[in-house]
Amino acid sequence: MTEHVRVVGTGLLGTSIGIALSRKGIRVSLHDISPTAVALARDLGAGVVDDDTAPDLVVVAAPPDVAGQVVADELERWPDAFVTDVASVKATVLDDVTARAPAHVGRYVGSHPMAGRERSGAVAAQADLFEGRTWVICPHDRSAREAHDLVRRMALAAGAVPTVMGAREHDAAVATVSHLPQVAASLVAARLREVPEDAVALAGQGVRDVTRIAASDPLLWTQILAANAEALLPVVDHLVADLDAVRSALQQVAHDRATEGARGVLAQAIAHGQLGRARIPGKHGAPPTTYATLIAVIPDEPGSLARLFADVGDAGVSIEDVRIEHARGGPVGLAELYVVPAAIEPLREALVAAGWNVHD
Amino acid sequence: MTEHVRVVGTGLLGTSIGIALSRKGIRVSLHDISPTAVALARDLGAGVVDDDTAPDLVVVAAPPDVAGQVVADELERWPDAFVTDVASVKATVLDDVTARAPAHVGRYVGSHPMAGRERSGAVAAQADLFEGRTWVICPHDRSAREAHDLVRRMALAAGAVPTVMGAREHDAAVATVSHLPQVAASLVAARLREVPEDAVALAGQGVRDVTRIAASDPLLWTQILAANAEALLPVVDHLVADLDAVRSALQQVAHDRATEGARGVLAQAIAHGQLGRARIPGKHGAPPTTYATLIAVIPDEPGSLARLFADVGDAGVSIEDVRIEHARGGPVGLAELYVVPAAIEPLREALVAAGWNVHD
Repeated sequence: MTEHVRVVGTGLLGTSIGIALSRKGIRVSLHDISPTAVALARDLGAGVVDDDTAPDLVVVAAPPDVAGQVVADELERWPDAFVTDVASVKATVLDDVTARAPAHVGRYVGSHPMAGRERSGAVAAQADLFEGRTWVICPHDRSAREAHDLVRRMALAAGAVPTVMGAREHDAAVATVSHLPQVAASLVAARLREVPEDAVALAGQGVRDVTRIAASDPLLWTQILAANAEALLPVVDHLVADLDAVRSALQQVAHDRATEGARGVLAQAIAHGQLGRARIPGKHGAPPTTYATLIAVIPDEPGSLARLFADVGDAGVSIEDVRIEHARGGPVGLAELYVVPAAIEPLREALVAAGWNVHD
Repeated sequence: MTEHVRVVGTGLLGTSIGIALSRKGIRVSLHDISPTAVALARDLGAGVVDDDTAPDLVVVAAPPDVAGQVVADELERWPDAFVTDVASVKATVLDDVTARAPAHVGRYVGSHPMAGRERSGAVAAQADLFEGRTWVICPHDRSAREAHDLVRRMALAAGAVPTVMGAREHDAAVATVSHLPQVAASLVAARLREVPEDAVALAGQGVRDVTRIAASDPLLWTQILAANAEALLPVVDHLVADLDAVRSALQQVAHDRATEGARGVLAQAIAHGQLGRARIPGKHGAPPTTYATLIAVIPDEPGSLARLFADVGDAGVSIEDVRIEHARGGPVGLAELYVVPAAIEPLREALVAAGWNVHD
């Protein structure tokens, strides 16, 4: 890809795209309403500051609220360029562009790299932010094939894995796999504000995992939730209905512990969760794998994890996931190693031989 | 501690307690309504099969539904023994015991080791299941000091960290830090059942973390939620109210994107989540630490994690937490290393010097 790419908006995503493409020798020009932001992006190697030569592709990396307006402006300004945006919602942007620049919307194809960080701004930019990540491209009934191809080549140049989806299909998908989990994590974490200190002290790995993304940025997430309100509403409605069912079941049980029907509702809620959880794909989008796990007891000192993983490496086993749990008040940590079932026995033998305290 | 401990119920917890105490040279006798279960526990080194000599301490490791009845029976059968249970809810068990064995309740002190696994049964037992874990002891207004002391010594012998809390205080705490997160994780995961394959294919680390515990056992969790219904209800009520507020805000935004008040509600929901999340204690129950993170790009091949952690070890840095993310369809993985802020620069220098592709 040897085209001239113009990046509008030099925050986390825009700057990361600029750095990734520049490193591939692609000519990138940077634009941002903030001169200091664009200067920082340039100093980070994201490209040259806004030249006025016509780009082949414009990448709009602006907040969801204004992406549509900015895309429309760029379409008007560069009559021969194709334009994409990277906002995390797609239908509202497409509607905006169609309304504002109906004559030019054929040169627009929205897209969404499934990459982000809790930190924002150019300072958080990474050349490999998109490496191996899914980059959704959302063609529409009027979009030019060349637009799609150009965005696809850019995604590949940035190291991403392009995939195609309609805008509304995309928004419905992220409502369930991204936006609802954010809402749930934030609301569960909000409950921790009022409990006593010795209650939060009982927090284990479960609540830590459930609430990790509750640390995300309120401003950004307000824009995302607002921009995807229509797709998110039916999903939230389902959650409200399910939660109401659980609440009534708890009320019945609280008043008469023998209520079998109510217990059935609770059991079904947990069982349905198991079914949904089992659908999440495993490594590299392969069908879900039930990994086998080994738990190794690790002394809480520098280098103990290093020794553990050195021994794992000697066993020639590929670790799918790792969870470290540090016990409250205790000197010992537990490392839970996730591997494919076939690898569990070799791993166990190797770690036991190396003197590790290992448990299934 | 040289007493004779009788374990009633040789599932995951009972068998693990038996193994841990036996290894400390404590005499443990095992009892279970299932002869095969008790035989398996014995073969795993959890103790001897049910002898009829009087125990000093009885540990009832029965499901929440029947724990109270079993505790009462044991109190009746062994007039000189102290009795505890390890069910994950405490007030209903205490009420049960008080009602069934009012003359003997002084010899009962409930307790709850904050340890468990997604797998259940004696086969999943671990000698170090309690190592460094919090073990809550719940004395009541009629409980004997010796009962408390004996349970505390047993918890210490099992490697746990005893802490004291009233039964209702305990139940309120776990309702917020354990039971509500389970309900939320299961209901969010349940939403994944109906979405198309290419929608779940977009699942990232966020939804994976939020729904991890949704894989838990429906039967056990039905008993836990039912037994703690009274303490859980007000917490669920708060969640319902917060979720309704988010839903109305989304409805307003969906109909008029300029609704500032509605956006304020969304922003507040995320911001309150940040505040609650920030209260979760860091390592060893210390005040919450904001860890610094480094992201290392790891080639997807056996031994690459081993090399990474070997280099981390050489840097003499203690890793607080690790997250591995495998990109969909990509050959590359990302390891996010959590360390105390002071350790971030030495770690960065060491990893860069070792040739790792490292990012903030």
